[in-house]
Amino acid sequence: MRVNGAKTTGKFGVKGIIVRSMTHSIDDYPHTGVMSYNDVEEKYWVPGAAISTKAANALSIALKNNPSLKFYFKQSCKTLPDAPSFNVIGEIIGSKFPNKFITVGGHLDSWDLGDGAHDDGTGIVQSIEVLRLLKLNNIIPKHTIRAVLFMNEENGLRGGKKYAEEAKKNNEIHVAALESDAGGHTPRGFSFQATNENKELFLSWKPLLAPYGLRDIAPGGSGADIYPLKNETISLFGYRPDSQRYFDYHHAATDTFDKVNKRELELGAASMTSLVYLLDNYLD
Amino acid sequence: MRVNGAKTTGKFGVKGIIVRSMTHSIDDYPHTGVMSYNDVEEKYWVPGAAISTKAANALSIALKNNPSLKFYFKQSCKTLPDAPSFNVIGEIIGSKFPNKFITVGGHLDSWDLGDGAHDDGTGIVQSIEVLRLLKLNNIIPKHTIRAVLFMNEENGLRGGKKYAEEAKKNNEIHVAALESDAGGHTPRGFSFQATNENKELFLSWKPLLAPYGLRDIAPGGSGADIYPLKNETISLFGYRPDSQRYFDYHHAATDTFDKVNKRELELGAASMTSLVYLLDNYLD
Repeated sequence: MRVNGAKTTGKFGVKGIIVRSMTHSIDDYPHTGVMSYNDVEEKYWVPGAAISTKAANALSIALKNNPSLKFYFKQSCKTLPDAPSFNVIGEIIGSKFPNKFITVGGHLDSWDLGDGAHDDGTGIVQSIEVLRLLKLNNIIPKHTIRAVLFMNEENGLRGGKKYAEEAKKNNEIHVAALESDAGGHTPRGFSFQATNENKELFLSWKPLLAPYGLRDIAPGGSGADIYPLKNETISLFGYRPDSQRYFDYHHAATDTFDKVNKRELELGAASMTSLVYLLDNYLD
Repeated sequence: MRVNGAKTTGKFGVKGIIVRSMTHSIDDYPHTGVMSYNDVEEKYWVPGAAISTKAANALSIALKNNPSLKFYFKQSCKTLPDAPSFNVIGEIIGSKFPNKFITVGGHLDSWDLGDGAHDDGTGIVQSIEVLRLLKLNNIIPKHTIRAVLFMNEENGLRGGKKYAEEAKKNNEIHVAALESDAGGHTPRGFSFQATNENKELFLSWKPLLAPYGLRDIAPGGSGADIYPLKNETISLFGYRPDSQRYFDYHHAATDTFDKVNKRELELGAASMTSLVYLLDNYLD
């Protein structure tokens, strides 16, 4: 509704649309984000806005009391000119396969309303933490392990696309990539895209991961920033934390540092490190 | 340390003990609770107190700066005289086995510092909700399903003991009991105590419960209030939500209503209802 609401309703002659925020939280903070008119003719473009759940409830009551109510809204959003920005990369060089890469990442940018603490500050911190935990445990990886902090995920995946483009240009072989971009809550598991052979391998790790509460190990999505790396051999992973509270903060003014629980964040970083360790040991 | 700290250290000639609160949260709210001198001679009884994590950190720094620092503390705790209080019970009478009971419960009382929102307001709400959800779904149970809101868990399990005593006196056959007393966070599963035959049965339900995120289905503890019902045949269950934040609130001034996430609470109630439904259908 948020992404395609305006695009879909314009052709029915509406003047604009108001979307109730996609959250279970009853509050004053609209959940916003990208929207698109895509392949729709410009004459059908209408304005769209997200309103908070409290505002939506109030509007609903007002409309019931007065069905001929007029609703007026004015928007001031605009697209500013592009400005330079950069991915940030740190790595531990592999002892056996220095030109084969396993990446772990998140994205540096955030939607404009909040601080982007959960989307995706936690993914960034956890990605850096994977390198620190490997070093702390004196683990010398076989592959080069990279923490890739992608720039500009929210506005068109430019950091992810550029990273994949550079990797290809430099003949860097990427065997696996992991993204944390679903919030910093308690770990539940990983979803992945891989060859059938590797899918079998990853499913065989379930007993190794279960004692840490990582029970959701299954084929599925991975991450927006690492998807441009997709080819016939790479294994792509998405970190899956508990999702219940994510849309209470996602793309809203409430996505601030105080919403992050340190222990839950750390458990996620440890979970990601364990996965990277397994990938480094079992993949060539 | 909190329960047995004073009891254990008295015989070593200390004057009293200070316990760092059992939480990962760095805050100003001590985690308190019951303590005991049990079988220790009265001459070894020393005062004990919990201090907040911030206070413990400050004390640690102060002691490093001045190893001969004197620490002074004074307590005003006391045990007040008993007063009457009551368990509260609601039930749906069973269509086939009206004198066979499945109970679901939590405890009405709380430790004195907070409101007891997570310990155990959430368990109380969820237990009532189990009856409401069965009715809402037009499920007429075979057994009598009881929501039992136990009084006085914190100070000696008097409600639980009295309930078991009355059940025995009235020849009520209890086939299963479920307790929610571990906070109102996202569901993870159930632990149980049962006969070997029933253990097999409950483990066979794993595929039914997994799609709802209920992955931790295993023998283990149940609940303090229902434990007095234990005999050779009854199945006792403990509801297991995500535990990471529980001791940020448990027995502290922070255990207030605003810490409860409505959706997580509701998912727990739905999980408990599913279990009660299975128990009602598979047990005689």
